Amino acid sequence: MSQPKHLTLGAFLMGSGHHLAAWRHPRAYSDGGLNFAHFKRLAQTAERGKFDAIFFADNLAMLGDGELGKYTALGDVFDPLVLLSGLATVTEHIGLISTVSTSYNEPYLLARKFASLDHLSGGRAGWNLVTSALDQEAQNFGRDKHFEHDDRYERAEEFIDVTTGLWDSWDDDAFVRDKAAGVYFHPEKLHTLNHKGERYQVRGPLNIPRSPQGYPVLIQAGSSEPGKVLAARTAEVVFTAQQTLANAQAFYADLKGRLPLYGRTADQLKIMPGISPVIGHTQSEAEDKYAELQDLVESRVGLGLLAGMAGGFDLSEYDLDGPLPELPVSNAMQSRQHLFIDLARRENLTIRQLYLKIAGARGHHTAVGTPVQIADLLEEWFTQGGADGFNIMPPFLPDGLELFVDLVVPQLQRRGLFRTEYSGSTLRENLGLRRPVSRYAR
Amino acid sequence: MSQPKHLTLGAFLMGSGHHLAAWRHPRAYSDGGLNFAHFKRLAQTAERGKFDAIFFADNLAMLGDGELGKYTALGDVFDPLVLLSGLATVTEHIGLISTVSTSYNEPYLLARKFASLDHLSGGRAGWNLVTSALDQEAQNFGRDKHFEHDDRYERAEEFIDVTTGLWDSWDDDAFVRDKAAGVYFHPEKLHTLNHKGERYQVRGPLNIPRSPQGYPVLIQAGSSEPGKVLAARTAEVVFTAQQTLANAQAFYADLKGRLPLYGRTADQLKIMPGISPVIGHTQSEAEDKYAELQDLVESRVGLGLLAGMAGGFDLSEYDLDGPLPELPVSNAMQSRQHLFIDLARRENLTIRQLYLKIAGARGHHTAVGTPVQIADLLEEWFTQGGADGFNIMPPFLPDGLELFVDLVVPQLQRRGLFRTEYSGSTLRENLGLRRPVSRYAR
Repeated sequence: MSQPKHLTLGAFLMGSGHHLAAWRHPRAYSDGGLNFAHFKRLAQTAERGKFDAIFFADNLAMLGDGELGKYTALGDVFDPLVLLSGLATVTEHIGLISTVSTSYNEPYLLARKFASLDHLSGGRAGWNLVTSALDQEAQNFGRDKHFEHDDRYERAEEFIDVTTGLWDSWDDDAFVRDKAAGVYFHPEKLHTLNHKGERYQVRGPLNIPRSPQGYPVLIQAGSSEPGKVLAARTAEVVFTAQQTLANAQAFYADLKGRLPLYGRTADQLKIMPGISPVIGHTQSEAEDKYAELQDLVESRVGLGLLAGMAGGFDLSEYDLDGPLPELPVSNAMQSRQHLFIDLARRENLTIRQLYLKIAGARGHHTAVGTPVQIADLLEEWFTQGGADGFNIMPPFLPDGLELFVDLVVPQLQRRGLFRTEYSGSTLRENLGLRRPVSRYAR
Repeated sequence: MSQPKHLTLGAFLMGSGHHLAAWRHPRAYSDGGLNFAHFKRLAQTAERGKFDAIFFADNLAMLGDGELGKYTALGDVFDPLVLLSGLATVTEHIGLISTVSTSYNEPYLLARKFASLDHLSGGRAGWNLVTSALDQEAQNFGRDKHFEHDDRYERAEEFIDVTTGLWDSWDDDAFVRDKAAGVYFHPEKLHTLNHKGERYQVRGPLNIPRSPQGYPVLIQAGSSEPGKVLAARTAEVVFTAQQTLANAQAFYADLKGRLPLYGRTADQLKIMPGISPVIGHTQSEAEDKYAELQDLVESRVGLGLLAGMAGGFDLSEYDLDGPLPELPVSNAMQSRQHLFIDLARRENLTIRQLYLKIAGARGHHTAVGTPVQIADLLEEWFTQGGADGFNIMPPFLPDGLELFVDLVVPQLQRRGLFRTEYSGSTLRENLGLRRPVSRYAR
């Protein structure tokens, strides 16, 4: 399958939207996090816009509990695999991408759940592999501290080998279900993995057949060095946070350049930066909308966001209108921490200016403008070697997604940058990714 | 809430049906195991029949691999929580019960998934707690052997305390989402569990609000002594395999008699034996249908079934038409093993007769007859202290469920034994079970 000429689009959904104060916006669904009808409408809107996929993040703990938590939309989210299994039945074409952590899941259970979703949806499942970030998550799973950064990436390396092994348990044509002969499957087409590794021992086989896509599309978002190593070997899509085209180009060239080390070609991995578009019919309408959201960010909430990004480091003792102090290195999301420290230094931002700068999309690029301006930006990043596509992060919902679908997507289509109909029947086919051949058939 | 006067009904669904040879029947869906459209139709049929719930079993391994496996409908099942999350969106009233093992799951993940399903479905989730049975399952999770029987029940006791604790993380009215004041939730209504037990250390809180039912209906099926102890303390529904009314009455009296030890009343636990009805418009039509299924059971498959029941003990060296030899005690499903040994001794069955006897429903009572005869049986067990309701196990699908809904349910309704409309909006309300009060509100 050749690489599609058009860019790829994901809709990264959160209940009220991505902006830190989204839930407070008069037209946002403040109860969106657990509102299935809301998500159904969003998924169907994204499908109307011919998006490749909808995408959900995940955490294995209540974030930001304590005093700061109460002011932010936390604590009420669906398990994303449960939600996506429900959304699979009310959509037909769109991909269904769930974040799941390797650090606190069993590979057998995870492999089976994704294979089930892939069967249920007719080949639309995607797995965004993360390694979790926080001690609060570790403490829900019998540990005091989270695994160290390198350790958890080593676990992830083995974990992904186990799951891809389990997904090959059955050859594609293993099940015959011959009623007359009484033969249900061909035993020689059943493979027992017998994985005995350093961290995992998993016998197999998986108790579900090879799924429509062979296995779900493998997505990663880690941008640290171990994250890039893992991605270059195994990922098929990488989500990334990039503030500028120059940074996006550097990341793109770096990651694509690593693929030959693993015998892979550039078209086997799609790079999709997150973009949070604040869309107005005019530039000033867009700016007003953005200002309206920013005005809803109270300083206690902005400081909570920075503390979360800094691995819990409390900045409330510092002058809000002074510079960012030196911060200790976090065990959490290292690449994201670098990004926002760099941003503060480069643009000489005060603490307040920094949290307002990242309140919209937590370090992803926020684009404020008209549909034409947003389309121009996407076209530039796509054609200038910064991106194969984008993960769209609407500032508040449902408004942000509907405007993108109704106003920006037609711009992209008119320029020949985006599909007008789905061409494939699986997520892989729409993304232009090959269906993996079983290891037993190679 | 007072106990309903009518009996309760669950539809225990398997892809092709419960009979060992169901998949070979000309009118069965041999590919039913992964056919979502088939399950959607079944769930909607059960809902048309006003069933309380649909129910799915689960195993964490491919059962019966090796030579025997290939002749039986194994290896192609959905993860039940993924399937039920999909079915939640295409049904409105019916309960959604998933089996999940405590032995190889993390309580935080399980608590969150069930709370998610309960929110997604508007209060229709049920959890059938099992402790898993087989070494093949253990070997998919880093162990050589399964936990010993008593050990795994001790794990289950602590596991259920952790999950019920997590489900009380948030008071029912914790989330206010006050846009003007910027307050999302009341922090004093958030509770951190801080469980530090012998087997589990789980901090909490859960990152999802208390669900419509408080927590999912808690179901168990273990009938061993530790199983009954756990059920008497914590279960709200017990599924059980009983061959005769006398046995059912003894089990019923035993389990209900244990409830006062835990400060519980008889109406807080519903006992639902499995019944596999083979329904014909006439007695001879029913018998012909049963014989048609039994004729499809080849001896190699029947012996595989017995070996599975006997913890892998191979009977193929013995005379099929001779008596059952002494068997070693299994670490697997102990109460089920006792049941079928008792059955063989009581009825003086040969090996062949035994496997045919349990081929229909793996030890559950098989009832072959007209709708009136089936209704008579259910009425007798219900009114004579043998059951609060039944888990219906159709021999093959969709036929067996459709006949039950169209022919037996009206019989039960005419006798005033079963609802004609759903009266409650949650599974708890339909079953006549109270919504649990949070431990922090007591």
